[in-house]
Formats: sequence, structure tokens, C-alpha cells
Amino acid sequence: MAKKTVSVREVLRAPSGAVSLADIDPRDTPSAPGDKDATKAQLAADGAELAVLQEKLYAEGATGGTRRVLLVLQGMDTSGKGGVIEHVAGSVNPQGLAITSFKKPTPEELRHGFLWRVRRAVPAPGLIGVFDRSHYEDVLIGRVRELATPAVIERRYREIVRFEDQLAESGVTIVKCMLHVSKWEQKQRLLARLDDSTKRWKFNPGDIDERALWDQYQRAYEIAVERTSTQTNPWYVVPSDRKWYRNWAIGRLLLEAVQDLDPRFPPADYDVAAQRDRLIDEAD
Amino acid sequence: MAKKTVSVREVLRAPSGAVSLADIDPRDTPSAPGDKDATKAQLAADGAELAVLQEKLYAEGATGGTRRVLLVLQGMDTSGKGGVIEHVAGSVNPQGLAITSFKKPTPEELRHGFLWRVRRAVPAPGLIGVFDRSHYEDVLIGRVRELATPAVIERRYREIVRFEDQLAESGVTIVKCMLHVSKWEQKQRLLARLDDSTKRWKFNPGDIDERALWDQYQRAYEIAVERTSTQTNPWYVVPSDRKWYRNWAIGRLLLEAVQDLDPRFPPADYDVAAQRDRLIDEAD
Repeated sequence: MAKKTVSVREVLRAPSGAVSLADIDPRDTPSAPGDKDATKAQLAADGAELAVLQEKLYAEGATGGTRRVLLVLQGMDTSGKGGVIEHVAGSVNPQGLAITSFKKPTPEELRHGFLWRVRRAVPAPGLIGVFDRSHYEDVLIGRVRELATPAVIERRYREIVRFEDQLAESGVTIVKCMLHVSKWEQKQRLLARLDDSTKRWKFNPGDIDERALWDQYQRAYEIAVERTSTQTNPWYVVPSDRKWYRNWAIGRLLLEAVQDLDPRFPPADYDVAAQRDRLIDEAD
Repeated sequence: MAKKTVSVREVLRAPSGAVSLADIDPRDTPSAPGDKDATKAQLAADGAELAVLQEKLYAEGATGGTRRVLLVLQGMDTSGKGGVIEHVAGSVNPQGLAITSFKKPTPEELRHGFLWRVRRAVPAPGLIGVFDRSHYEDVLIGRVRELATPAVIERRYREIVRFEDQLAESGVTIVKCMLHVSKWEQKQRLLARLDDSTKRWKFNPGDIDERALWDQYQRAYEIAVERTSTQTNPWYVVPSDRKWYRNWAIGRLLLEAVQDLDPRFPPADYDVAAQRDRLIDEAD
């Protein structure tokens, strides 16, 4: 049995005030329950617990409850957003999930405000939603690639904070994770994609062009985290060079969020004995 | 190792012409690979194979392919649509799934044609979509509860056939399953829900009212299957009183459909060696 850990939320929560990603080692494994094997075992145990809690949350949502959870995954290419979805979200009943992958906006999406497509993807009550990329793209690539003016980008941080506050008020617990990988590790992962014929489709020559902007992207993440990490909706910076740590840590952040909700199976809102009699006495 | 089975599609495919559900035993287990334990083991093995094929289909979709699969699940209450999603769809990466649960139409949905909400839920290329209930509700409960005139119901069968033909032309392989349970088995399952405090939320007193219309529902299913089972988009009638058989059979129908597509990891559309050199030679 892995040893008991402290709340990973306290350890990974972004500091209030200035954020310096250079001071957070992507290879670190803070508050991991043990070595790689022990941590993987704990991820499996946490996943089983999450599955049970998720069923209760689903039951709540199916009977009038409004609570739900939204896991937001942001990170550079190869940081492992897909891996987290497979290994963390994959442990729960797929009926209880709502996964949305945000790609380059379509022409229709561009005709609306940047939050339009995001509002449509907010998970329904009882579900665990997962955003693979999110509204943060509009202040990350949006900033680095100058897809909007500086004034517009500035306004977006405030719009995001207000939007997420509204979500919280409507019953959405948001868990925002930045998957923090090193530039060196990304290179290894890109090379691995090139070397594996089953992974070459994931590689895009443009990925190397983006690497030339690595420092600008890191700075854009720092600013985004600084401006949008709030008491209600904090950011977590998850060291992600070690996949086993990243998967466990994000799974744990999600589990702790659902544990806090303490969902329960709803009691019957009908007379159980009377319904039982109706069924038994039914004419066949 | 379980013994080799014949194609379950041939065995479960609805007959052309008149369909008599009374002649199909819901407790039957046609072409099962063995007893309950052996069949469960085969389901796990099939699930692993499906997961691998699904990743290839996903890769195809991510690189311009248009093919996808849509599993349509229809059946009376307690027939196990949710169980199939958990045990069959649960074996693949959740990123590759698009699950839609069709409830009583909303006021907005009612303002549109009955296929409006269905078109919006068609899986994107590369995905396996699952419909938990579907457009068939509009010719099932729609017929039994007389939610539309007979003339409208008649027209819907033709609209459904045309709609599904269009889907097939746009790359969607549809696998339509009717989960065939007996009235007796449904009673046992409803009693089990009443007797289990973690399942009472799934029970609704209206479920017993619907049982009074059992024969009309069976007839509505027969007519729907007769009118909409085509060469391209056939119906499968899956005996579902034994959950282990139902899960294996539907998993197998899905697996065979994806096997037929024979998806492959796309080759690189760039010069692998050149990109490798770019990465290696990168200034740091």
C-alpha cells in the first residue's frame, strides 16, 4: 500500500502574485506517494475511487442536482493532455464524461466571442467535463502569435475570471491544470513520434516552428496563470516531464475535487414499498 | 482461449420482411464463445482489440479521413443500454468516443424536425459515437403514446431510412442494436432497483405504467425494425436477458464493424528524416 500523501492541491497550487515557471522543475514529483511503480498503483486505486464517486455525482445530476466538475488541461505540445484523458478520465464510466477538444476555431466560431464555443461545452450537471485545450488558447497562442490586439488580450483575462466565477456559481467545480514540460523533454517526445510509425500522424512540422517561440509561450502561461488564478478557481502547475507523476497528480487533483463535493446517491422520492407492491401484484 | 465464433452479425441480423420478437428468446445466447466466464473473458479480449483499432480510426480522422462508427442502442427500460456503454465503450480511449443520451425532447428540440437534434450528435470523423436511445424514439414512444399522427409516424420511417443512407454515404458505419429483454426479466430488474438503495434513483413510478403498454411497445419495435432494416443499415436483435451475453454480443458487433473498416495509422505526409535533422540541429 502506498504511503498517505498530503493534499496535492496545496503543493501544486500556483502562487498568488508573480509566477516563474523557470523556478518549477518539470522533473520534480512533489508529494508523490512513492516511486514510479507505487505511484502507478496509487493512480489505479484513485481511479477506482473516482469511478464510484462519479456514479454518485451522476445520480445527483440525473435527479435535479446542478453540481459538476470541469477539468481544464493546458500545456505545450506533447505535454500529455491526451495521456491524462486516457489514464485519468478512462477510469470512469464514459457516460459520466464530456470531453471537448478545442482546435483552431472554425469560421463560425470566429464570428462569435471567444467564450461562445466554450459555454456550449460546459458539462451538464452530474458530469465530469474535460477540456483538452480551452478558452486559455485565446490568451496563449492568441498572445504569442498576436491573433488579437494587446487591449483585447488584456480584456480577455478579466472576461475569463468573470466567466469562471459564473460557472462556479452555477455548480461547476473547475480544476485548471498547466502541464509543465521542459523544452528538452518536448524534443525527446517529438523525436519519439518521428521514430515510431504508429505515432508519426501526431507530428506536424509546425510543432518545431512553435518551439522557436518557447520562451514567449512560457511567459504567456505565466501571465495567464497570474491573471486568472483566483481563490475560487486556482491554477495548478503540474510538473509533467515524468508521465507517471503527471497522471497521478492530475488524477489526484480531480479526485480531491470530487471528494470535497461528497456526492451521495439520492434517496427515493416515491414510496418504495408501495411501488414494490405494484410490481409484484401486476397482472401479467 | 475461447473457441472461435462465427460472425455474430449473421446470427443476430433482423430478418428481412416480417419480424416477430416473440419468436426470439431473450435468454438465448447464439454463437456465444462459451459459458458466462468464457464469454466475459472474450469480451475483455475483444475490448482490447477494439481499443487498438479505435486508435487507428482516430488517427485517420485526425488526418483528413471521414470514416466513423455509430452504435445505436434501443431497448425497453432496464434492457441495459447503460451497461453496454460502461462495459463495451468503456474499453476504448474516451477521447475516441462521442456518447449522446437522448431524453424527452426539450422545447427547443420540439420546434425542429425530429432529426434535428440527431444530426447535431452524429460523431465526427475518427470517432465511435454511441446513441443511448435515438431518433427511433420518435417512432416507438411516438407511436405507442400517439405523440404524432399515424401519417407523421409513417413518414418518419422513410425519413429515417433516407437519413441513415446519407450518413452511410458520408462515411458513417451504423450498428443498430435492439436490446431484447423479456417482460419478466424487466420486472426482476425493476425490483432489484427498488431493493438497492444505491439504485433507487434509477427507478421511476412511470416505469410501471409503461409496462402496461408492453405489447404495444413490442409491436412498435417490430414495425420499426421491419421498416428501417436495410442492406446498408441493418438492425440486430440482441437477446438481452443475460447481461454477459448482451455485452459480449454488442461489443462483438461493434468490433466486427471496425475490423471491416481496417483502419491504418496514416503514413507521414512530411519528410521524417528532414524533420528529425531539424530537431537535432535546433539551436538551444
